[in-house]
Amino acid sequence: MDYDRKSLQLHKTLQWKIETKLKAEIKDKHDLSIVYSPWVAAPCLEIAKDKSKVYDYTLKANTVAIISDGSAVLGLWNIGPEASLPVMEWKAALFKQFGWINAFPIILDTQDTEEIIATIKNIAPTFGWINLEDISSPRCFEIEERLKAELSIPVMHDDQHGTAIVCLAGIINALKITGKNIQNTKIIINWVGAAWVAIAKLLHLYGFSDIISVDSKWTIYQWRDHLNAEKKLLTDFTNEACILDLESKSCIKWDLSQAVTWRDIFIWVSVADVLTKAMVESMNTDPIVFALANPNPEISFELAAESGVKIMATWRSDYPNQINNVLVFPGIFKWALQAWVADITDEMKITAAKALAAYVQNPTVDRIIPSPFDPGIADVIAQAVQWK
Amino acid sequence: MDYDRKSLQLHKTLQWKIETKLKAEIKDKHDLSIVYSPWVAAPCLEIAKDKSKVYDYTLKANTVAIISDGSAVLGLWNIGPEASLPVMEWKAALFKQFGWINAFPIILDTQDTEEIIATIKNIAPTFGWINLEDISSPRCFEIEERLKAELSIPVMHDDQHGTAIVCLAGIINALKITGKNIQNTKIIINWVGAAWVAIAKLLHLYGFSDIISVDSKWTIYQWRDHLNAEKKLLTDFTNEACILDLESKSCIKWDLSQAVTWRDIFIWVSVADVLTKAMVESMNTDPIVFALANPNPEISFELAAESGVKIMATWRSDYPNQINNVLVFPGIFKWALQAWVADITDEMKITAAKALAAYVQNPTVDRIIPSPFDPGIADVIAQAVQWK
Repeated sequence: MDYDRKSLQLHKTLQWKIETKLKAEIKDKHDLSIVYSPWVAAPCLEIAKDKSKVYDYTLKANTVAIISDGSAVLGLWNIGPEASLPVMEWKAALFKQFGWINAFPIILDTQDTEEIIATIKNIAPTFGWINLEDISSPRCFEIEERLKAELSIPVMHDDQHGTAIVCLAGIINALKITGKNIQNTKIIINWVGAAWVAIAKLLHLYGFSDIISVDSKWTIYQWRDHLNAEKKLLTDFTNEACILDLESKSCIKWDLSQAVTWRDIFIWVSVADVLTKAMVESMNTDPIVFALANPNPEISFELAAESGVKIMATWRSDYPNQINNVLVFPGIFKWALQAWVADITDEMKITAAKALAAYVQNPTVDRIIPSPFDPGIADVIAQAVQWK
Repeated sequence: MDYDRKSLQLHKTLQWKIETKLKAEIKDKHDLSIVYSPWVAAPCLEIAKDKSKVYDYTLKANTVAIISDGSAVLGLWNIGPEASLPVMEWKAALFKQFGWINAFPIILDTQDTEEIIATIKNIAPTFGWINLEDISSPRCFEIEERLKAELSIPVMHDDQHGTAIVCLAGIINALKITGKNIQNTKIIINWVGAAWVAIAKLLHLYGFSDIISVDSKWTIYQWRDHLNAEKKLLTDFTNEACILDLESKSCIKWDLSQAVTWRDIFIWVSVADVLTKAMVESMNTDPIVFALANPNPEISFELAAESGVKIMATWRSDYPNQINNVLVFPGIFKWALQAWVADITDEMKITAAKALAAYVQNPTVDRIIPSPFDPGIADVIAQAVQWK
């Protein structure tokens, strides 16, 4: 509560968190004649002749749009565009502080998939990159895919891919500490948002073959009834080792407490306190827990320690091992703006995760991923990715 | 040509003219926990409860969108959105330098009226004010009217109203210098863009009753065939004193050289050098010429002086009496953002013009309007308008 009040106070005092700044002051009438009427016509005409010159003469070269419809904000979910603006504005501030990139928040007064796609396409010419943010699934999948196909600038839904990259980086180092190896490591994953599929996919591509996905009821199999688009996608990467009854085309139903047994890694976003001491104790030795409910994790730090959790990661800035996208997006976007890439491939994502993991030279249980304040992370990622 | 090259060089060196800046640095993990996860949730929840709080906690309170579809840019006309971006970006810089307002350019990849309206409505929640810019007429009239009606934030097409206010201010002072009075002053006006109607309307509201409007062919009367929406609107404010043949329901057709005879004020935007020495000499004594073709005026400064033009105004920064919207928009928007007004009324526009004229304490032929670099103009206008 105290922090709530402190945060409100700070936001009210600052009011806006980012502002515009002139790169060069306009000092006199001569300056004005060059930068505005009549001589601004010169760069306009150059761009009219060759559209790609817009990168040479304007802010497009270094500007990201952070776009949200406010449908899946933090753990608050569908609070609407206006209420999501503080998050988008701070994200723009983080882009500047950690990546020296100009980012500007655009919140949308629609949650209709087609309208969102049309609107973003219409405002795209200003921007060098589109960062989709806090859009609920499964709409976010279609919006991202369609925009990737229909726009010539890169589009990334950071909730999916940024989160997946940071999780993979943390898991790479957690394995180093615990001595577990990729082949034998068993993962259980649950999510209620966009990153679920992206995390499972990236872990699978990296080489983890035994990933169980569970929703609020049971394990998710291809033949289960009423699977939504998101859960259908998941079946491409998870539950490959399911115990399948071919006759009935159904797998044995496991709920969370059954599915977590003998697992090595638990990745979860749901609500606080669903992970009990007994569940942790049913996991393999040296259990690794990514408890990503926001703001309070699925198991408290105290109970986790008591239950024998070896390594714990959360969203929180005030505990060790914060899964924070700010470790990734400044570097990825920085490189992409410099290199004018059209897309971020899976290989690039894995490279970014490896580079982030390698940044921590001697990982410990309290430091499987760097702090955002460690110097030069954006550059390390930008440099690693550029060779992929 | 030299200036063209200089301008290109400057634009290429700067690349972007505005950038984002953090209002407060994020120094450590504690800061990060307050401004981002988890405690950014506090202002989000406040806004979710009461949408109007978005003005207390975010950049909306002080941020203007400068929106163009690139269909009527400077004297270059329909050069497309990308090629218009240098103009929009510098306009954002001028907002900051002269009005301390955060403005951000949004260029649109559509020139369809309905799509433009839908797109702007969808991105409006981020902004406190919409500044439409360089949209061709007559589409600009419908777009502005519809957005004014359908959005709860103010919308202004600056090409129309900003230009009209500066012209009226200049004319108020030109009258003081020449001793002409409103009742007897005869005006001739032509335009090929959005400001035409706005200028005629504002001059008419201010009290000028004898305004002739002429297009590239003839004087414009209500009964003329094939009048577009723009020209139809003009007939509400102009040519009231036309010589009308009631029988044939037609007025006597005057072309430019006929219509300019015995006029006091010439306001024109077409192409360079259409105003000849003979035409100027046919005007009343002490003719006042607003020659607003861009970049080169309808009559050169040299020929104007030779022909007896008393007072001349142009778009150009490098000559006296520049008709520059930057004299108006920072003040108008500054006040509107402070006062949360829903609309700019005609009375406010006239007040702004009077305040701008009064700023020049002793007007001379070379100084009928202030320079943008004169101190405090935005505040003078903001203060004058707030009592209307």
